[in-house]
Amino acid sequence: MKRLIRQFGAWLVLMAIASIAHAAPSEPTSVRGTGDLGIVIERATGSLLIIDSTKRVAVKRIEGLGDLSHASAVFSRDERYAYVFGRDGGLTKVDLLTGSIAHRVMQAGNSIGGAISDDGTLVAVSNYEPGGVRVFDADTLALVADIPAKWSGGTSKTIGLVDAPGRRFVFSLWDAGETWIADFSKGSKPQITKFAEIGSNPYDALITPDGRTYIAGLYGEDGLTAIDLWQASPAPRKILQGYGRGEEKLPVYKMPHLEGWALAGDRFVLPEVGHHEVLWVDSRSFKEVARTPVHGQPVFAIARPDGRYVWVNFAHPLNDTIQVLDTLTGKVVREWKPGPGVLHMEFTPRGNEVWVSVRDSNVVQVYDAHTYEKKAEINAKSPSGIFLTARAHKTGL
Amino acid sequence: MKRLIRQFGAWLVLMAIASIAHAAPSEPTSVRGTGDLGIVIERATGSLLIIDSTKRVAVKRIEGLGDLSHASAVFSRDERYAYVFGRDGGLTKVDLLTGSIAHRVMQAGNSIGGAISDDGTLVAVSNYEPGGVRVFDADTLALVADIPAKWSGGTSKTIGLVDAPGRRFVFSLWDAGETWIADFSKGSKPQITKFAEIGSNPYDALITPDGRTYIAGLYGEDGLTAIDLWQASPAPRKILQGYGRGEEKLPVYKMPHLEGWALAGDRFVLPEVGHHEVLWVDSRSFKEVARTPVHGQPVFAIARPDGRYVWVNFAHPLNDTIQVLDTLTGKVVREWKPGPGVLHMEFTPRGNEVWVSVRDSNVVQVYDAHTYEKKAEINAKSPSGIFLTARAHKTGL
Repeated sequence: MKRLIRQFGAWLVLMAIASIAHAAPSEPTSVRGTGDLGIVIERATGSLLIIDSTKRVAVKRIEGLGDLSHASAVFSRDERYAYVFGRDGGLTKVDLLTGSIAHRVMQAGNSIGGAISDDGTLVAVSNYEPGGVRVFDADTLALVADIPAKWSGGTSKTIGLVDAPGRRFVFSLWDAGETWIADFSKGSKPQITKFAEIGSNPYDALITPDGRTYIAGLYGEDGLTAIDLWQASPAPRKILQGYGRGEEKLPVYKMPHLEGWALAGDRFVLPEVGHHEVLWVDSRSFKEVARTPVHGQPVFAIARPDGRYVWVNFAHPLNDTIQVLDTLTGKVVREWKPGPGVLHMEFTPRGNEVWVSVRDSNVVQVYDAHTYEKKAEINAKSPSGIFLTARAHKTGL
Repeated sequence: MKRLIRQFGAWLVLMAIASIAHAAPSEPTSVRGTGDLGIVIERATGSLLIIDSTKRVAVKRIEGLGDLSHASAVFSRDERYAYVFGRDGGLTKVDLLTGSIAHRVMQAGNSIGGAISDDGTLVAVSNYEPGGVRVFDADTLALVADIPAKWSGGTSKTIGLVDAPGRRFVFSLWDAGETWIADFSKGSKPQITKFAEIGSNPYDALITPDGRTYIAGLYGEDGLTAIDLWQASPAPRKILQGYGRGEEKLPVYKMPHLEGWALAGDRFVLPEVGHHEVLWVDSRSFKEVARTPVHGQPVFAIARPDGRYVWVNFAHPLNDTIQVLDTLTGKVVREWKPGPGVLHMEFTPRGNEVWVSVRDSNVVQVYDAHTYEKKAEINAKSPSGIFLTARAHKTGL
């Protein structure tokens, strides 16, 4: 009898505990909007931070994402999930609300970047090994299509993968010097259009914010190649013939990222290769219209979303500095040293603030993009890329 | 003893039930991303529908929003809340996750439109009665600032209220023919800049997508007035001198909305007043470069987000039709009749689909914006404006 009462008592205690555990707050923290979330890549530890750009805080660290050097990310159209592209071929779908890994596949041996289709249903990854593009179902990460980058010389590494309107992906073949369009508008079997001889060793590419023009940077020769996707039969054309490493083959500490190209008023602004300059390029003619001397070899030249100012960071060993250029005058109007290893800058969608990763200080800094006041500093382990969910609504990001 | 065992048994059953009751799905429906939500205004019933643009469904109806004729909405930066501006001065904050009204204030007697500051902290409303702009805390809807539109002739109705970068709002005074900038960058007390004599009876306005140029349409005279906000001392200038009702004062069934102005390639496209035409305007010079004859008096001319095509709807009695124009050729490439009372069109953020309200059929239709296939039809009571949360990330929307 006593034993029974003790058992009963133990049951009561257990059930009470179970009951408390279940009595979650009526609104758990995961009931929240997702338009102000984002992630910070922690490259050295294979982890990322989920961030809240309204409160300017890190919400949670997620680990186990493999090799995240040069990692990038895109977002689901509901802005709940991040798709993180690792360097080791890992593709990880991260749930920003529950703070957990929803799916993860090792989809290749070595990869560089990815994209999500305009309807949000397909995620594509650009691979070095095996060379080509693989396309996955955005819900399940099941393989939908495999596009090996076969050419006369074998199988090429692929780079510069972007989404284009109409359920298309565009990418380039490093070894082959080709650009391909994979059109999934008819379903899961893509129609492939190939452009041969776009130039030697395309190393990175971008699509203009309206999704109209695909531009590939060339490592093997000067100039860039532009393709106007609005045309019924697009033809690649060479632009900015003087852009590149030049005849003298200057020492280049880091080839600049092309993703940074952004429209500042009527002009694109882009980092020059090797030289301590940024270029201003007419957005219609793609002709160079001006140059601004800057602090070092520029890596990213990123326009504030309204285009009024352009923020520039630099390659090693001058990568402790940010300069800000006035779009109207082309002049440097601000310069300071956030700390060693300024790797990336991400503006909030309407440009009121900017997030800056300072790798070797192990912090992310948040600045008022108008007054330059530092609003917050957040601890992060060797932070590199910063990606806000607002990218979900943009072509080519 | 038996009684004790029975009690124990009853407890077990009760706790098991309690345990089941608490074992709610680990993820309630309100745990979801908000980047693919939106609202449809039901003007006749003072209600709105919350919609899911991924599943193409209505999630819930919310009632009790007052007079919603000409209602519009903006979104919080986390894309969780809609701020709905009613015609009767009602300002309602709707929680899209819980499907409920979070706050509601009657802030004036008669109002027209509103805006949210680039940092998401201030919501402004443009009022006819009392004439002026009132600014509210985005969290609580507490009044932050009251800006009566005083001029030499008394107090003016205000129109064409938009947000501009740097925590600013820009609006115009119908009676006074003035444009004002209210700059909240220094806190809750705005610095006001006034531009006098911008033209007679400004009736609507827009800001270009980059937040650079404010353009007011004039009811009292032809032409429009543009103000370049990038300049240190901006000066209003007259553009498109021939735009308007003209000398003969054509019958105008509905003054076209200016919000529809969107960049299609290098040109803005806008509905002509009174005439059955849309205008193509160079985005740099603001000079007219072409006209396209269309089906009726255009109300909205909205570019697909990539700018490749422009969708046009029309004023009564020809408001059962949509025409689609090719941006490269300027020609009509598609025309059909969705039904009586086509009032509004809203593209998904990357332009793969478009939502169309067909008021007098009491439906909202969803089209593939590339193939024109109708993907869904959703019942709605006299639907008018459609607003997707992606607007949270855009200037001027």
